[in-house]
Formats: sequence, C-alpha cells, structure tokens
Amino acid sequence: MSPGAKKGILERLDAGEIVFGDGGFVFALEKRGYVKAGPWTPEAAVEHPEAVRQLHREFLRAGSNVMQTFTFYASDDKLENRGNTPRFSGQQINEAACDLAREVANEGNALVAGGVSQTPSYLSCKSENDVKAIFKKQIDVFVKKDVDFLIAEYFEHVEEAEWAVQVLKSTGKPVAATMCIGPDGDLNGVSPGDCAVKLIKAGAQIVGINCHFDPMTCVKTVKMMKEGVEKAGLKAHYMCQPLAYHTPDCNCQGFIDLPEFPFSLEPRILTRWDMQQYAREAYNAGIRYIGGCCGFEPYHVRALAEELAPETGSLPQGSEKHGIWGSGLEMHTKPWVRARARRDYWENLKPASGRPFCPAMAKPDGWGVTKGHADLMQQKEATSKDQLKVLFDKSNKSN
Amino acid sequence: MSPGAKKGILERLDAGEIVFGDGGFVFALEKRGYVKAGPWTPEAAVEHPEAVRQLHREFLRAGSNVMQTFTFYASDDKLENRGNTPRFSGQQINEAACDLAREVANEGNALVAGGVSQTPSYLSCKSENDVKAIFKKQIDVFVKKDVDFLIAEYFEHVEEAEWAVQVLKSTGKPVAATMCIGPDGDLNGVSPGDCAVKLIKAGAQIVGINCHFDPMTCVKTVKMMKEGVEKAGLKAHYMCQPLAYHTPDCNCQGFIDLPEFPFSLEPRILTRWDMQQYAREAYNAGIRYIGGCCGFEPYHVRALAEELAPETGSLPQGSEKHGIWGSGLEMHTKPWVRARARRDYWENLKPASGRPFCPAMAKPDGWGVTKGHADLMQQKEATSKDQLKVLFDKSNKSN
Amino acid sequence: MSPGAKKGILERLDAGEIVFGDGGFVFALEKRGYVKAGPWTPEAAVEHPEAVRQLHREFLRAGSNVMQTFTFYASDDKLENRGNTPRFSGQQINEAACDLAREVANEGNALVAGGVSQTPSYLSCKSENDVKAIFKKQIDVFVKKDVDFLIAEYFEHVEEAEWAVQVLKSTGKPVAATMCIGPDGDLNGVSPGDCAVKLIKAGAQIVGINCHFDPMTCVKTVKMMKEGVEKAGLKAHYMCQPLAYHTPDCNCQGFIDLPEFPFSLEPRILTRWDMQQYAREAYNAGIRYIGGCCGFEPYHVRALAEELAPETGSLPQGSEKHGIWGSGLEMHTKPWVRARARRDYWENLKPASGRPFCPAMAKPDGWGVTKGHADLMQQKEATSKDQLKVLFDKSNKSN
Amino acid sequence: MSPGAKKGILERLDAGEIVFGDGGFVFALEKRGYVKAGPWTPEAAVEHPEAVRQLHREFLRAGSNVMQTFTFYASDDKLENRGNTPRFSGQQINEAACDLAREVANEGNALVAGGVSQTPSYLSCKSENDVKAIFKKQIDVFVKKDVDFLIAEYFEHVEEAEWAVQVLKSTGKPVAATMCIGPDGDLNGVSPGDCAVKLIKAGAQIVGINCHFDPMTCVKTVKMMKEGVEKAGLKAHYMCQPLAYHTPDCNCQGFIDLPEFPFSLEPRILTRWDMQQYAREAYNAGIRYIGGCCGFEPYHVRALAEELAPETGSLPQGSEKHGIWGSGLEMHTKPWVRARARRDYWENLKPASGRPFCPAMAKPDGWGVTKGHADLMQQKEATSKDQLKVLFDKSNKSN
Repeated sequence: MSPGAKKGILERLDAGEIVFGDGGFVFALEKRGYVKAGPWTPEAAVEHPEAVRQLHREFLRAGSNVMQTFTFYASDDKLENRGNTPRFSGQQINEAACDLAREVANEGNALVAGGVSQTPSYLSCKSENDVKAIFKKQIDVFVKKDVDFLIAEYFEHVEEAEWAVQVLKSTGKPVAATMCIGPDGDLNGVSPGDCAVKLIKAGAQIVGINCHFDPMTCVKTVKMMKEGVEKAGLKAHYMCQPLAYHTPDCNCQGFIDLPEFPFSLEPRILTRWDMQQYAREAYNAGIRYIGGCCGFEPYHVRALAEELAPETGSLPQGSEKHGIWGSGLEMHTKPWVRARARRDYWENLKPASGRPFCPAMAKPDGWGVTKGHADLMQQKEATSKDQLKVLFDKSNKSN
Repeated sequence: MSPGAKKGILERLDAGEIVFGDGGFVFALEKRGYVKAGPWTPEAAVEHPEAVRQLHREFLRAGSNVMQTFTFYASDDKLENRGNTPRFSGQQINEAACDLAREVANEGNALVAGGVSQTPSYLSCKSENDVKAIFKKQIDVFVKKDVDFLIAEYFEHVEEAEWAVQVLKSTGKPVAATMCIGPDGDLNGVSPGDCAVKLIKAGAQIVGINCHFDPMTCVKTVKMMKEGVEKAGLKAHYMCQPLAYHTPDCNCQGFIDLPEFPFSLEPRILTRWDMQQYAREAYNAGIRYIGGCCGFEPYHVRALAEELAPETGSLPQGSEKHGIWGSGLEMHTKPWVRARARRDYWENLKPASGRPFCPAMAKPDGWGVTKGHADLMQQKEATSKDQLKVLFDKSNKSN
Repeated sequence: MSPGAKKGILERLDAGEIVFGDGGFVFALEKRGYVKAGPWTPEAAVEHPEAVRQLHREFLRAGSNVMQTFTFYASDDKLENRGNTPRFSGQQINEAACDLAREVANEGNALVAGGVSQTPSYLSCKSENDVKAIFKKQIDVFVKKDVDFLIAEYFEHVEEAEWAVQVLKSTGKPVAATMCIGPDGDLNGVSPGDCAVKLIKAGAQIVGINCHFDPMTCVKTVKMMKEGVEKAGLKAHYMCQPLAYHTPDCNCQGFIDLPEFPFSLEPRILTRWDMQQYAREAYNAGIRYIGGCCGFEPYHVRALAEELAPETGSLPQGSEKHGIWGSGLEMHTKPWVRARARRDYWENLKPASGRPFCPAMAKPDGWGVTKGHADLMQQKEATSKDQLKVLFDKSNKSN
Repeated sequence: MSPGAKKGILERLDAGEIVFGDGGFVFALEKRGYVKAGPWTPEAAVEHPEAVRQLHREFLRAGSNVMQTFTFYASDDKLENRGNTPRFSGQQINEAACDLAREVANEGNALVAGGVSQTPSYLSCKSENDVKAIFKKQIDVFVKKDVDFLIAEYFEHVEEAEWAVQVLKSTGKPVAATMCIGPDGDLNGVSPGDCAVKLIKAGAQIVGINCHFDPMTCVKTVKMMKEGVEKAGLKAHYMCQPLAYHTPDCNCQGFIDLPEFPFSLEPRILTRWDMQQYAREAYNAGIRYIGGCCGFEPYHVRALAEELAPETGSLPQGSEKHGIWGSGLEMHTKPWVRARARRDYWENLKPASGRPFCPAMAKPDGWGVTKGHADLMQQKEATSKDQLKVLFDKSNKSN
C-alpha cells in the first residue's frame, strides 16, 4: 500500500475512527541501551537504525496507527546544549528518523508524524524569532521527507507551544499539539481549557496532553481542555499520550519532580489491565487519538487496541501472541495459574509491590522555579563539580 | 573473531573471570509482542527472527558473554502440549534459535549455550527413558549446530535435572545446570546443597539457580549449594540467573504462585540499582557466572557489568549510553534533577509504588501439589470450559 | 478555686490565650468498655460515673482547659432512636454529665461546656420547631446546672447548626459552633466560609470544625472559614477539634465512609509527634481553641500542650510523666533506645504499619445520600434482618 | 465472694478452664498520663491509685480473670537506677499495688498475681545471690499481702528467669514464668523448648511467653516451648501474653529494636478482630492462660473473651457495650455503616494505614549486644550529654 493510498489523520478522526498512537521511544530505547538518560537525545536514529526500526515495528504490530519520527530533542540548540559536541547534526538525525518511520509505516496502515518539542532556547528567554527558527529547521526536514502530519508536543508553557504550532501550520500539513501539563495548567498557571483554546487559535486541529502524568490524570486534563474549547464555541479533535507510570503524588511539574525520576520508576509502571482501563476512560471522554509516552512498551499499546477492539472491529497483529484478559493462561502447566485465565481476576487484583520497606507515595521535589529563573538558564557545557555541589546541598536540605 | 578463537566457558571460569549471562527472552519478547504468555513457546525464532536477533544484540551490547539459544520449552512434547498443533517442529525452532545466537555471538566476545528445561513428560510421570529421549532430540540439534556449551535450566525436581545433565554430558561439551528453587529446596524437599551435589555427580561442572525468586533469594540459595558441595568434598563453578522481580513473599514454588504472575508483576520490577547490589552480593558469594532470567531487560544486565567493572576492568559497549550512578543527569534541564546525579541519592532512595490502594506483599496461592498429583497431569488439548470452572471456583475459595 | 473565680471562655480568647479542648469521650470510653459503638449513647454518665470522671481527670491532667459534658447524642429522640428503650431519660444523663464535668473542672483551671449535636429528627425531616425543641430540652439542663458556655458541635448541615446556635444563644451564655465538614463544605455543598458566616450571624462567637477529618484537613477547613468570615467583614474566634486518625482518603462525609470505620481504624491513629505538628499548624493559622475529637487520648492532648508550651509558658501536670521529644528515653536500658531521645529522630521517622498485606489508603463507601433520602430516615426499631440483607448486598456490590 | 472461695489458678487450668489475663498497664497508663516512658516505673500505684484502680476495673469488666499487681520494674535496684531518687520505696509501691489488685479482684471472679521481672542487676553482671535478693524483697510483700499466685515475667535470659522461679517457688504459691523471646530463643540463643524445660525444672507450673512480639509470633513460640516440654517428657500449663502491635519485622530482641519503639507504634496496633484471631490460634495451640501485654487495652481483652465465649459459655460484663462482630452497627445512622454489621466484613477487611508516605515494615536497630557488653551496664545517674552524643552518632550511622 502506498502512503498516498492511506486515509490522512484528519480524515480518520473526522470519520470518528480511533487512532492509536505509539509509545515512548526515549525511555524504551534507554532500557535497550541506545539512548542516554539526562541528554535524552535521539542520535540512535543514525547510530543504531536497526534498534529504532525494531521498536517502530513492535508498536506497529501492537496496533499503532502513527509512527512518530524519533526526533524528540533533535533541535540543534538541544543537541549542542547537552554538553556534547554532537557527532551528528540535527539535520542528519531528523532525516534518518523520517526514513525509519516511513519504512515501517509502509509495512502497515500507519501514518508518519514529524514531531517537535520544547527548546532550551525558550527556557533561556530567547526571542520568539529565535525560538521559531529552531522549529523551522526541523520542519524543513519534515517537509522534505513529506511526513503525513506534524505534532508539537511536550510543552510546559503554552506560549512556546503556540509559536511551534504557528511554524508547523505554515507547512499546510495537519497539526496536532499536546502539552505536558496536568489539571493545574501550564507552568505560568494558564488553565488546560485556555491552553487548548490558544492552541486551536494558533492553528492546531488536534489538541491534548502528553507525558508528565499518569493516564487518568491526563484524561482528566484533556476533559478540561474539551470543556474550555466547547465553552469558547470552538471545535477540535482530542489526543492523549500519557506516561505508563502511576503518579498520584505529582505536583504541577509532573513526574520529573518525583524523587524516582528517571531511574527508579519501576514500581510505578502500569500493567496491561491499567491500560485497558485508560483506553476505556479516554474513549468515554471523547478522545479518539489514544497513545502513550514515556514508559509505554509495545504491550501497553496492544492493551489499548484490545480494549477498544469492540469499537474498532479488529485486533492488532500482535494479539496473535496474547490471550484477551489472560486467556492464554488456560494452557499453563499449573492449575492455579490456569485459574487466573479470566477478566474479573485481573481486573480486581491489587498488585503488591514486593517492597515492604518502601512507601506508596513520594513527596515531589519542590524547587518551584519556572522559565526566567536563573536556575533554569541552559548551558552548553557539562555542569561543573562546583555547580553540582550547590545542587546536592540544596537537594539534601529539601529532603 | 572466529568462535574457535574464543576462550571456552570453563577456561574463563577456571581463570577466575566473571561471565555475564543474558536476561529473560520469554518475558522480554512477550512485552514486545512475540511470545504468548501461557504457552510461553519460542516459535518466534522462526516467525520473527529479527526480533529475537535484536534482543540478543541488546544483551550483547549490555555486556552478556553468553547468548543462550532461544529454546526454552522447545521440546516437542511441550510444543504439542500447549493446545496448538505447532506450525513449526521442535527441530526447526531449535535450529533457527542456534543460528540467531551464533550470528550475534560472532559480533562480540560471547559464547553460545544450548539450553533444555523441564518437560511436561516428567510432570506427567513418563519414564526416565521417555524423558531423556525428549532432551536427546534437542541436544542433537545443539551438537549439529556446534554450540559452545550446554545448560540444563529451570528444573523444579532434581531427579529430572539429573536426567537432563546425564544426556547433556554425553555430548562431551561443558555442562551447566540450574534449578528454579529457593532455600527450601526442590519440590520434593531435597535441599539446595543436596541438589547441587547430585547435579555435580551427574556431570555438571557449573551449578546454580535460575528463575522463580528474586536475586537476593537466589544468591542465598546458591550459597547453600556451595556449602553443600564443599561439605561433600566436591568442586564446581557457581551460577545465578534470578528474576528481575522482588519476591519476598514467595513460598517454595516461587513467583508462579504469586497472584500477580504473570500479568501484574510490574510493581515488583527491580531497578538498575537493585541489580548493582545483586551483582556485588553474587560476586562476594563466590558466584562468577552472573546473569538473569524472567524480567531482566538489557539495562539490568548492563547494571551487573557496571557494578563489577572494577573487577573486570571494562565497561560494556552499552555504557556509552549510561552515566554510572546517574551521572548522565548532570546535563538535565532541571537543576533538581541534576541534583540526583550521584550514587548516594540512588542507593538510599526507597522508591514509591504510586499505588496507595495496593499492598506491599501478597499471599501466594497455596495449592501445594507437586509431580504425581492429578492436577498436574498435562494434556494436549486446551483446558475445557468445565475444567476451567472447577479451577475458578477453587481459586475464589482460596483467596 | 471556685468556678466563678475563673476567667470565662471569651475573656480567655479575647486576651489571646490558648484554650486546650479535651479529647473524644465516645471512642475512648468505647475502648474502655463503657460506650457501645453503633448507638454511641452516653448513658455511662449515670451507669459508670467513675469511668467518665476518670477520663475527665486524665484530660484535665493532660492540659485540657475545657471539660465538655459527656452528652453527645444525649437528646431524647436519639436515645429512643437507637433501638433501645433507654433505662435512663435524657434529663438524667445530661444532669449526671454536668455534675461530673463540674466536679473535675473544679480540680483545676478548666471550664465546663455543655454540648449539643445533630439530631435524628433533622435527618428525618422534622420541622424547625421540632428540632429546636429537642435542643431546648438539653439546654434546660445546662442552664439549670449553670455550665460556663455552650457548644453546638458535629453538624453536617449548616441549617441545623444555625437552629442549634439560635437555641443556645437564647441562654445568654457564650456559644461555640463546630461542624464536622471538610474543605468541600456541608452535605448540601455550602462552603466552609459560608457556613462560618451563617453560624456567626446566628449568634456564635466561636466557630470551627470538629470530628470527621484528620487534623491537617480540619485546620485547612478552619482557614477557609476564617477567610470567609474576614471577607464578610465579620469577626470570630476559631476552634478546631479534629480526629486522631489519618484520613487522606476521605470524601466529603469524612471517616464514617472509610471502610475501617469504626472498628479497624487502629493503623490510622496519630502519634504524639503528629499532634505536635497539628498544634503548631493550628496556632499558625490563628486558631486559639485547640482540642480533639474521636480517637484523641489524653496523651494526644498533652502533646498539644507541650508543643505550645513556649506560647503558654507552662506545661500541663501530666508532663511530669513525659520527657519532651522523647527525652525520657535517656534512661532506657538499651543504648540504641537511648539514641532515640531527641527531636529530630521522632520528627523525621516515617512509622511502619507492620501490615505488609494492607494498603496505604482505602476507597470510601460512596452511597452519596444526604438528608431527605429514604435511606437516611431514622427508625426507633432495630434494623430488621431483611433490611440488613438489602444493605449487605448493596455493600458487597459497591466494593 | 471472698477470695478464699475462688478456685485457684492451678485448679482452673487443671480443670481445662480458660483463664484470661489482663493487658499492659505500663503502656496504657503512659497514654493516660501516669507512667513515664523510659523509666517505665509503677509509682502511680501510690501517687494516683484511682487511675490504676480504674484500669484494673476495666480489665475485669473486659473479662480478665487475673489482676496482676502493677509492680513491673518495681524492684529497688530498678527504681534507683532510673536516674531518680525515688520518692517512694519499692516496698511502698509493691504494697499499694497489691491492695489495688485485691480490691478490684474482689469485685469479680479474678485472682491476684504478684509479678517480678528482669533486673538491671542481672544485666550489670551481679551475682546470683544479689539478683535473688532483689526478687526476694518483692516476694516478701507478695507473701505478706497473700496474693493468689506469682508470675516471673519479661525475662530475656533464661538463667535469670530460673533464678526468679526458684525464689518464687520458695513461697509455696503456684508459679508462672514467661519470657519475652521469640522463635530464635533467649538472648544467648537458648531455644524456646529448652527455656521451657529449664523453667519447669526450676519449679514453674505454667510457662509461656509475654511481651516483645506480636500475638502470632508469641503463639508460635509457645508451641515451640510445648514441643520441647513434651519431648522432655515433662508437663506444664501454657500461657501467652503478647504485644498488641504487629511486629513481622522484628529480630530476636523484639519490638524494642523497632525504630517506632516506643512513641510511634500506633500504626501497628492490633484491631479487635486481630485479637479474636489470636485467641482462636492460642486456644487451638493448647494455650489456656491467654492474656496480653504492652499495647493491650481493655477492648482487646474483651475480644479474647468474645472469641472464646463458645468455649467458656459466657460473655464478659463489658460485652453489654459491644455487639459481637460489629452487630452494634445495625443501629447506626448511615445505611452503609449498617452494612458493616457482620463478621465477614470485618474478618476480611485489610485496614489501610492512611499513611501513604510510610513503609509497611521497618529495619530493626541491630546493635546486637547482650548481657555482659559494656553498652549494657546500667547506671543510676541520668545519661550525660556526652554519653548521648556518642549514641546519637552511632544511631545515625546505622540508619
């Protein structure tokens, strides 16, 4: 099937179809050994294309209808800013990522989406023109590689998100925009409803939430967006790509502030059953673009597709290797494990952590600084020992 | 480097070198969409070789010195027994798995190990000859494909493990044998020390524990094996390939009996820091073959290699994408996350589960049946609705 | 010292003094064997005066400046309503309770407060006149016994609380009024600020919160009352008498809806150190009448007095038997227990529950009915087996 | 009924009757404001007899058949040793305690037991004669006051317990002896079975366990005693007086080593339902003297009596104020609380702690010193600031 033959993203959503997003490349590839936590940059698209391709393929198999280019943090200012002289230019990485996404998209009924995200330039108070120029460089690659639509995602400040949408809109391609905020709104306190209205006015046809919070919090926040949009007499499609981590204890900045971020989040990982609940909630809330972000593995996306199979009328290819609601256990060696081959067992189970010396919730770090604060000025050089010592002391005192 | 040029497994261990095993293929590939939980059979080696190859490569990159052939439960009796008429014969699967392991092993300093595991035939009380014939069929492939050594793993009854070792030993290749038992011994109550002695007498040069329990429990059990072996005046190398799940609440049958098995184990997943602690404990206990089993992802193996880098004198390739003890965070956008770039932060953190409605520990299912009990007779057909109803009722009553 | 010689409640508060309330008689006496959970009626004042007197005395010793008459639920409609033909009339109980409170108040610097609380008549939609007549009967006793001031407490609906205040006000004695609500307001959704304004307008000089929620939630709610009062240009004194149970998981109806109420609340009991934190928070919020309700034992009240000793300039008599911040442990047999004789140890300790199979939080029962609903009509007869069956089924379904 | 008319302790036990002990005076009176934690001495018997009498009366009402004299730590060496020059002599305290116990015992069917416990003299390595002389002084009072039987309780070293039993035995009165040890045995590693045998040989007719561990651990330890006694061909009655705190995480020294001891144990307090389970287990284990120790409040003892009412054929007086298995809730105002008026509700409830930031279990302090170690030498003077500093540093390092 040639890409041209596929229905576009807006055609699908306009027709009321469910579109499944993919999962979180940065976290999944970190665990596989191809992304470095801290910089989180996507040079693996050039260095280890087989690993990136394989992950795309797994998400496709799990039911994803969108292959997002692996271009998170692939703006030149970010790449330089991570204290490395990058061996690869932003252009190289963005091009390679487009090619990989397209290659796998062609293996199934998936679209390619080019993505941009928040920039260190904005945090460091660069001008609107400077920040837009950063986005423009990535967009140029996306246009050249003819992606199917564009996503501005992972924005903490709606102002920067609007700038991104304006640049993306200039291409004529469909534009989706998601912010990584919760019910308290963006880091300047702009409410989810107001953020959504601003994004639509800037040109986005699809708005929503990604990253930073767990699925139920994100669905709740998208609902608040929807209410704001409807109150303003506007229309949009809605999208949700949350974490695969439980975060009931987050403050407004999300999981980054949790003490477990990013290396001890394991006890918070959602089960496949949690994901089915999320898919149902999102669907009931009127969200039709349903995907995931950090922590989502292929089996999490498959769970979304399985929950909504009654609505879509089909199961993903990956369900060949999965019995709905645990029915694969009917063939387990042990009879008491066969006794778990049923929905009410898994739906009602309250899974234990196996960690009796650990608490159920954590207090988020609360330095409470936002754009403009000296602590947030970004630098190209690695943080020096002296700079770190100041941070360590500050951190010990606040715990 | 040709395989012949590599030092063999016994040469390495005799020289006091550390050998890092790999992680759990069945669970990792289940999450990636290529293995079905319940049957747990490895036909992906034929169906989706690129997925199996990629996982081998990730473990290699993470520091694994052994590529275990993806042949768990690949005996013909098991393949038939899972209620499917298999589309692929045991021979096909075993051959494909050998080729994939060899291909990736050739990309680095890794050996290929052919593995066999416990059989439904034994559970169903077949004769010693019948059970040995099952092992023999797999071994024939391993010999033909010239694997570097053999592993008999995942045995709950030492008698069956001895039979497996005897068959493996007949090939003249080095033999490792691990049981999936805890400090209480095998399912007939044979102590870890006695199990180890029996395995050595049957011909194993390397003995230890794999699967079913968390790392600290497995290390403790291997220590008991070592004491038994030394008391008997014997010698062996020791090996440990535990779960990547915390299981303080298991009974003698291990994690299979936990209510969360196998679909809600997420809150129990070990962090990379837990893994470093395991590697150190295992090393201190005199264990030199250190790897993992179900739940181990590539980053878990990398953590083992990083912890013992002072001893091995080298870091794995995958550590290019990982700052030791969180140092990659020195370049994070947020200052309070940079403040986590240090060992004492991660070592002392008690990670929260984000699940305040869930308990810390669970009561294992306790049907307490073992080989010979009618409940454990294996059948080729899928469990019928009526058979399931009996199990569901029994399960509800026991909870 | 004759009662007449003591400063009155308003004199004390007007002078900026701190007034310590007492703790929860109903729950404390239930554990001692003199009150029956369910009916919760106070006939022990007549039946076992020595037990009631002793508890008064312990609170006095702990620093309480107010002896509340043990007259909770001592209205005639409530006494009849509990399915018992009471052996004692409301008048008998109220009189005996007044005498006991006065006897012990005379042993120290404490005042006697007569208390009324919400009535089954109101829940069963009786008229304003009928409900007021109920209050009037109790008040007549309080006037005859010449208590020092009056408290209308434990109201879930501000309308009923206003009626109570109006009756109390008619005596000419000072009137305090507390509601058992949280930040969400009364059961009709009237906000804490609006409730406080209504109570002051009805005649209360002291307003606040008692029961149903943990100390921090109650302090927060009193703060909301204070903001409402100040916004309305009014003035009042503030009072707080919370639970001694942690209730982070409550909904608007408070701890009654928690599954643990009332017989398994033990794991939620606050420590003395939690209480010191409460006293400080309450003081900082401008609350000067600081006491407790259900769950408060004498040592909890003593902790309030010890925390605010720098402000009051004195310790209660009971502190003869308590070393501040654990200093009594300096003389413990074991050296590692002596090492706990310090503030930072106790202040930072996160106490374990010793219950690894239990969760940290619970889901409150959510039948969500309020005054006027058929389910809440009160009856004099014991609930019949048939009525109970309906409830049990409803309960099982909702869990 | 005159005391002489009552059946003695051995007559009751020989007849197979259940004897209910009382609860923990020291902890209960600490919360009521009459005992100081740290010294834990019982001068309240003289200072505040009404408080001690009231607690005796509550236990009697709850079903206790034994009034233990409130003479814990009332030996002269202990009284001096607590850094206070005592205002009251040991003799005064012991006499007053005997009178109070007898007064209340006469109000019902209870016996008076005089108790001695471990001494600082033994810990400080005084001679057998010196230690026995300490016990002798208390015993002289008990003989003079003609208590019904004697209890040697709270011993960590069986040697000291034997000495105590020998002194008690010399009076001709029945002797019970309990140690505060767990399954690991006494602090010198003498097993529970061997301890019991030694105590019987020294003259005890009743042996068992008190304090330091939770009910299930104590029952388990008494079972081990019973096995040891039976293996030795001896006979005895068995007794159990455990903590009312859950202590699954204790080491061999019991709850004293838990970080929460003694001021933050609240989350560990057992419910009445936990107590019913304990009573049943103890009964099934053949234990017939069933009581409690630290943490036991009157309602806990009542729960023991209610659980075993089918066996004893009667309910205690205090059950007038308690509906079996929550049946008192049948008359609660709210229908969803009435729905909790049943056994299966309370028996299956896993009570939440309301403390999501706290763990389920704690690591006990592990200084691991025992009698003879310099750290355990007892002194009369208060611990000095310099001595404390050494302890605080040691403690901080070990956490």
